[in-house]
Parts: sequence; structure tokens; C-alpha cells
Amino acid sequence: MSDLPKSVEICEKGPREGLQIEPGPIPTESKIRLIDALSETGLRHIQIVSFVNPRRVPGWADADEVVRSFTPRAGVRYSPLWLNEKGLTRALRFKDRLSFNEAILVSASEPFMVRNQNSDRAENARRQINMVKLLTENGIHPESTLVQAAFGCNFAGDITTEQLLDTIRHSFDIAAETGVTLRRVGLNDTMAWATPETVKRTVGAVRETWPELKINLHFHNTRGLGIANAYAGLEMGVDSYDASVGGLGGCPFAGHKGAAGNVCTEDLVFLCAELGIETGIDLDKLIEAARLAETIVGHPLPGSIMRGGPLDQLRRNIADGARAS
Amino acid sequence: MSDLPKSVEICEKGPREGLQIEPGPIPTESKIRLIDALSETGLRHIQIVSFVNPRRVPGWADADEVVRSFTPRAGVRYSPLWLNEKGLTRALRFKDRLSFNEAILVSASEPFMVRNQNSDRAENARRQINMVKLLTENGIHPESTLVQAAFGCNFAGDITTEQLLDTIRHSFDIAAETGVTLRRVGLNDTMAWATPETVKRTVGAVRETWPELKINLHFHNTRGLGIANAYAGLEMGVDSYDASVGGLGGCPFAGHKGAAGNVCTEDLVFLCAELGIETGIDLDKLIEAARLAETIVGHPLPGSIMRGGPLDQLRRNIADGARAS
Repeated sequence: MSDLPKSVEICEKGPREGLQIEPGPIPTESKIRLIDALSETGLRHIQIVSFVNPRRVPGWADADEVVRSFTPRAGVRYSPLWLNEKGLTRALRFKDRLSFNEAILVSASEPFMVRNQNSDRAENARRQINMVKLLTENGIHPESTLVQAAFGCNFAGDITTEQLLDTIRHSFDIAAETGVTLRRVGLNDTMAWATPETVKRTVGAVRETWPELKINLHFHNTRGLGIANAYAGLEMGVDSYDASVGGLGGCPFAGHKGAAGNVCTEDLVFLCAELGIETGIDLDKLIEAARLAETIVGHPLPGSIMRGGPLDQLRRNIADGARAS
Repeated sequence: MSDLPKSVEICEKGPREGLQIEPGPIPTESKIRLIDALSETGLRHIQIVSFVNPRRVPGWADADEVVRSFTPRAGVRYSPLWLNEKGLTRALRFKDRLSFNEAILVSASEPFMVRNQNSDRAENARRQINMVKLLTENGIHPESTLVQAAFGCNFAGDITTEQLLDTIRHSFDIAAETGVTLRRVGLNDTMAWATPETVKRTVGAVRETWPELKINLHFHNTRGLGIANAYAGLEMGVDSYDASVGGLGGCPFAGHKGAAGNVCTEDLVFLCAELGIETGIDLDKLIEAARLAETIVGHPLPGSIMRGGPLDQLRRNIADGARAS
């Protein structure tokens, strides 16, 4: 009936994406505690930090301290976010502790890029080329591109399949110019415009055009469709997703307006487990990390399974009860 | 790629299912105000009231008053819940104002029925037969059966497809005994065990066994899969769903333990609208009703689209901006 993958890799975005938008300053040691807890869950990729202008994002003024002080675990990649050469230069000082996966940042919506990064397409290409050069000079050969606003944009509206494909072609041009090889594209539904049907259509078109390109999906739950969109991706066989522990990253339940966080990691892991898809993640430990995240931010997070409870424990209890009687 | 229906009917369960679990007593006039607001949205079926023991469910001690005082709108069916002959008798006093759709209540899990209704399968069959007789004596010929715990049960575990089919056969037996004809089955995921894949498998098996039987799906969002499960139903062409405005009916964000409410009506309507599926419902009015529900219960409800905002207004703004420039 569908083409579910056998296993899925989940990239945890909670520490980076979630903690910066919280109103109170989150203590550095709390960030480290959350990262270290996530390291114990079986996650193999965690985005832990943002090297952005501390005047614009004061929540990440302690980026250096966080990177210096967390405890890396073997087999786990830890990555930073950067948006410009200055941020990348800061991040590269920690290249022994960090992994630089998502290197070529483009946007399917030019108006979004102008507002968010203050650059049009040509200017962004120039910046991206300089940053890839900086990476290769540091011995890092990026293989990924990340497409913002891949499904729609609050300033440009719906993104057509052709616009998206054209944006990815643009990434290939940037890669060619810098001598790196693109093997992976991240489709980011930055402003929550995706639906399960546009996910299927888009994934189908990308795969048809570049059969060898690995696809990663990144959904926000702003309009309640995050998990349904991820399921549509699973139905198409996509085996790589971003997610955020507890649903960190925008909190509609604390009176914030607008955007909600990524799809909730533990809810996605629960879905995968129930569908028989391997994630390598210990759901119970991940739920503990989600509870820790709630304690750190000091208000309820939108994750469901940490309240509803997973089914495996119930199944075991029922089986034990049946044996006892 | 999928077999989406052209249109979908949504039965609103919020007033009945949502308001009874709220800690404060909800004033009768607030219940009526919410029902009347929902009547204006284009919904064609609203379950508005519960005729249950007021000592066990004090939140519905005012059932009579609610039914007497709401303003029925032509073309909308208003239905009650009842669990036994006494409740049904009370409800039937209002048969000019109420619709008696879900008449034959069974459970795919006998342990759940024993706990919830204090009756085993045989005893329940006896009760259901008596209630159908009471309905037919009142000139009402029910055509529906409603299966509780259709996908799984906290006391019995996973429900196999064969167990579910067997439960529906049992409903056909009850119908035959009372001379009514079953045309519709409601599959209720009472304790939130369904996944998109079990939804597809179950719907497929029911349809294969009884191709003429209309299927209704009822999901709770306790484990975060409500909308994904509804989408799986849509993919199978199922065109009838229960939902709850704002996600009323269990509120994980107010510190309640355990069960969450039904799939959120306005989130489901948004999904349908984006998929090009007609619901006949005005999403903006429904979001207003969800906000009213929040005001009435006095705490945030879990619905997403009332915070994230639907896309149509954004699309119109973008089109207007493009024309203006």
C-alpha cells in the first residue's frame, strides 16, 4: 500500500531552534544539560548551536561556551547553524567538535531571502560560494544543500514544483562553481505551507529529476499538519527528517503568536516505532529529554506522546497481566 | 497516488465530549452559545449533549436545559449521547429536536466494555436490543453502529482486524434481531491506538467485507497521530469523520493526565480545504467558534490553525500586494 523505509535518520533541531526563541535567557548550563541528555537517546545528529549576531539573537550569545562545554558522544554528529561568513568563521574554530552538514543555503522564495537574510538570489549565490570556499579551505567538502520555503512562503505564496526544482538547480550551480558534489537536499517547510499531497508531489518530482539525491524533510507544526506531512514523506520512502524534542521552537501555548516548532521528535519516533521503522532511538529516554526541555523552558511544550504515553509499556503490562491470571 | 474523496462530512463532537471533562462547571448558557456558534459554521451534524447519570457526570446535569434552549438551524442534525435505556428515554423526550444516529454501541474490546459500561458482550447485546426496540417504538429506525476501541485498548492491547470484523458482525446480529438495517459503521479509536497504517488496513478489510457499509472515523490526538490518521482515512476515500472544535475534550496543556480530545475540527477542515476536499464549512467562522470554546473553558486548547492561521487570507494578501505593485 505504501513504500515505507526500513529505517529513518532523525536530526534533532530542538537545542538550536527551540531555545533561541524562549523569552527568558536560558542558562548556558541548561542548554548543555539538554544536549547531553539528547546524546544519550540514540540520536545520531543534533544541531546544538547557532553562530548568529548576538545583538539580533541574544539567546545565542553563549554559542562558544555551549560548544566548548557539552560532552560529545562517539557516533553522534553535532552541528551548528550559521547564516554568513562571520558566523561560519566563528563556527570553524570548533571544527574538531562540530559537523558542517548543511552548507549551501538557498530559498525557493526570493522575497523570504530578502527579508530573512537581506540578500537577493544573486547576492546569496555569491555569499554561499564564498562560504563553501571557506569550508573547502578548512578541509570540509559539503555535500548538502538546504532549501528554505520549499513548499510555500508567507510573502510569496505557494511554491510550484518547477520553482522548487529551479532552486535546487541553482544549488547545483553553486556546488559546481566551488567544485563540491551535492548528494543531499533538505526541503524545509520554513513557514508551514506543506500538506501531505504537496509533500508527495514535491518528493516525487525531486526524485524523478535527481534519482541519486538523498532527501531530508523539515516540517513545522504551525498549522497542525507536521506529523501528517512526515507520514506522507514516509509513504514516499523518505528516510531523513528534522525534528525538535518536545516540539521546542515556537510555543503557541505560551501566548506566542505565529510559528510553532518543528515536528516533535518523540512523536515522530513513536510513529516510526508503530510503523515498524527503525530509528535507533530509545523512546523512553527521548521522552525524559522532552520533560527536561519542558523544565528548562518553564512551560508546557506541545509534544503529545510525553503526555499520552507510548504503547509498548501498555502492551507489556497487558501481556504480564495475561500471564499472571 | 491516493483515492481522496471529493467531499467529507464532519460530525462535531466538541460540545458533548469536550465540556464534560472540564474541571469548572461550564455554565449552561456558555454551552448553548457554543452550540449556536457551531450551527453557523456550515457543520451539518453536531453532538450537543450527553444523557448520562448526573451523579457520575455532573457536567451534564443540565442536559435537558441545553436541549430546550439551543437554537436549531435548518439542515443541521443535533444528536445526544446515551449509554443506557434510562438515558435514551430521557433523550427521546426531545425527539423533535434531536437526531438519533449512533444507535448500536459495541466494543472491539470486551474488557473495555466491562470497565466502561459494566457489561460483557452478551449483556451489552441484550441492552442494545432493548434500546433499538425503544427507538423503533418511537418511529426511529437506526442505521448505524458505533465500535469503541476499534484499533486498540489500554486493557486488551492491539485489536486485530479479525476481532474488529467479528465485532461488526455482532452489530449486524443485533440489527437483524431488531429488524433494522445497518448502513453505517463508526470506528472509534477511543484510546488512541490507531496509526495511519492500521487505519488503512482496517478500512480496507471492512470495505472488502461489506462494500456498501459507510465508514465513519473517530480519532483522539492523545499520541499525536490524530490528523495523520485522518489523512490515512482520506487516502482510503473515507468521507465521514468525527472531530472536536479546538481539540476540546481532554486538555494535556492544563495539566490533565492521559487522554486528549478528538482530532481538532478546524485543523481537519484546513487539511481538507488544502487537499481540495469540500466540507461545506466556513473555516474562519469555525476558528471563531474555537476561540469562543477557549474563552469558555478558560485555558488554551490544542488546536493549531487557530494560532498558525489558515493560508487563504495570506494568499489573498499576496495577490492583492502583487496587483498593487
